[in-house]
Amino acid sequence: MPRTFNFCAGPAALPEEVLLEAKNELLDWKGLGVSVMEVSHRGKEFTETINLAETSLRRLLEIPESYSVLFLQGGASLQFSAVPLNLPIGTTADYVHTGHWSAKAINEAQRFCDVNVVAELDSEDLLSIPMEETWKYSENPAYLHLTSNETISGVEFFWTPSASLPLVADMSSTLLSRPINVTKYGVIYAGAQKNIGPAGLTILIVSKDLLGHAGNNCPTMLNWTVAAQSSSMQNTPPTFAIYMAGLVFSWLENIGGLESVESINRRKASTLYEFIDASGFYSNNVASESRSLMNIPFHLSDSSLDEKFLQQSSSLGLLNLKGHRAVGGMRASIYNAVPEEAVTTLISFMSDFEMRYG
Amino acid sequence: MPRTFNFCAGPAALPEEVLLEAKNELLDWKGLGVSVMEVSHRGKEFTETINLAETSLRRLLEIPESYSVLFLQGGASLQFSAVPLNLPIGTTADYVHTGHWSAKAINEAQRFCDVNVVAELDSEDLLSIPMEETWKYSENPAYLHLTSNETISGVEFFWTPSASLPLVADMSSTLLSRPINVTKYGVIYAGAQKNIGPAGLTILIVSKDLLGHAGNNCPTMLNWTVAAQSSSMQNTPPTFAIYMAGLVFSWLENIGGLESVESINRRKASTLYEFIDASGFYSNNVASESRSLMNIPFHLSDSSLDEKFLQQSSSLGLLNLKGHRAVGGMRASIYNAVPEEAVTTLISFMSDFEMRYG
Repeated sequence: MPRTFNFCAGPAALPEEVLLEAKNELLDWKGLGVSVMEVSHRGKEFTETINLAETSLRRLLEIPESYSVLFLQGGASLQFSAVPLNLPIGTTADYVHTGHWSAKAINEAQRFCDVNVVAELDSEDLLSIPMEETWKYSENPAYLHLTSNETISGVEFFWTPSASLPLVADMSSTLLSRPINVTKYGVIYAGAQKNIGPAGLTILIVSKDLLGHAGNNCPTMLNWTVAAQSSSMQNTPPTFAIYMAGLVFSWLENIGGLESVESINRRKASTLYEFIDASGFYSNNVASESRSLMNIPFHLSDSSLDEKFLQQSSSLGLLNLKGHRAVGGMRASIYNAVPEEAVTTLISFMSDFEMRYG
Repeated sequence: MPRTFNFCAGPAALPEEVLLEAKNELLDWKGLGVSVMEVSHRGKEFTETINLAETSLRRLLEIPESYSVLFLQGGASLQFSAVPLNLPIGTTADYVHTGHWSAKAINEAQRFCDVNVVAELDSEDLLSIPMEETWKYSENPAYLHLTSNETISGVEFFWTPSASLPLVADMSSTLLSRPINVTKYGVIYAGAQKNIGPAGLTILIVSKDLLGHAGNNCPTMLNWTVAAQSSSMQNTPPTFAIYMAGLVFSWLENIGGLESVESINRRKASTLYEFIDASGFYSNNVASESRSLMNIPFHLSDSSLDEKFLQQSSSLGLLNLKGHRAVGGMRASIYNAVPEEAVTTLISFMSDFEMRYG
């Protein structure tokens, strides 16, 4: 079968160039006669690989030297525990609740500290992130946590709160989709399986002045300071996933870095949103200022046509358009590796489907 | 470069057949037109993959239905915390201290419970595991933990303690090298990067009657009960590593299962130990009854020849023979995927080297 267009919410599409390079050297990496999966993480070849990956990521995101970059395991979900276990907790941490993933982060943090929810997603009419003026901060919070992009509802933050607190962001589904100002954040973390690489790797970027606060109840493998001091070699890291992430970072640099990527991503998203809005058949329920560039959920006006839509799109090679079970309908996840052609092909199909059934 | 012989202690050699299969379908898996890395972990194709992997592992190790098989992240090192966080802790847990890795497990457990060390590696003359008669159990331990194989010193358990306690074993470097009686253990865990698959996956086998005891201080991602209830889908698992492990399990079944594997492994190890013992130039300091089948450390009688030995072996395609920095000298790790030919080629080189420099 020819390569298809993959709208999977994650693990998501990877750049074809990256997969081809991995394939070509899968049994003979760097002329060593072994696979990258078969070498010591402490050997000079892999050390070079992880260092180059970090350097490339630092260039892409303009990460200053005052931040550590960690390559971890366990997904963003493990960081839901690690955040309160690593940060200097007074009594309370403030969390913004904008959907499924922030709820998960909040529930997990409550094991280790008091959580104050400063704001909830506004869902009266269209879904939107409430303005900061309405947020209810606690008196002396240790940090403020937010989920930069909610994959299920398709709601994204396009601004950073102004409160002078360590800002902690789960950027799993938005990191590397556009430039960000890292210095506005204390901690940024992201599961790899959207815009970074295969599942099984988590990137964490932390301001060094936030290190050194983990208590004795923090498992060593969750301790950011230990990871920073050992250059992510506190135990065997997920070497193949790190190698793949390095290839993805190079690919991003080769196509012009995050400003180029952002303009492509904005074009992809706006084309699809505009088509949906102009249609009387499809709808998206997110307010325009909060609409995700990465995950575009939409409903057909008649949900009894959902199965037909999925079967027909899938048979045309437009894969994984089914919406999350919590909200139903459809979802097009259009991460970096999903080409513009995928979006135009999807729109052609949607237009055709509407003509036939709408 | 042709494929070489890779004696790396981990991440270790993978079967060439497995790497070839992964390479062939890297961009088009199951005829879907996408990589196995690019599909949802909850989709029917990947669900089938993880289920087949589990079934194959259950056949290989004869794991009864009364045990759960979990596919986790974070390495065995994360389980050093998870063990005391998941098991019903009274006051004390008993640990056998046989080397570097048991020391790590002990240090980590001490964050969460009192640890009693029942026995230390006997290192008076040759290294050996002391007989159980000499062990000092605590009064009412919650469980007994041991490290089945120590990769650095090359010491392996070939028997199981008789105490009627939940037995917890870190089998990272020995699991799947030979048949074991799973029912003698309460918990078995293993990082994948020796005999299972790429780094970034941890297999945990737990008797279901030990589930349900994790307290509120256990991070959700470390909670075995949550993982068991969600079939290892509590969050996105390391899908590519699980796919690779499944291929390795099939490869093991195809070559005749663990009894065949054991006889090959015993032949490889005994050939090398016999050569070392017969030589006046090379030495191994482990008592015969505790000698590891997987990791064979040895020293040259003149350590000033170490660099020459490593350079010359490496230039012949005999890779990664350098011993761990804690003990120096050499180490040949001869996991399942290291063919017998690798051992005979190594012995030829060692013999030749001895003739030239001994």
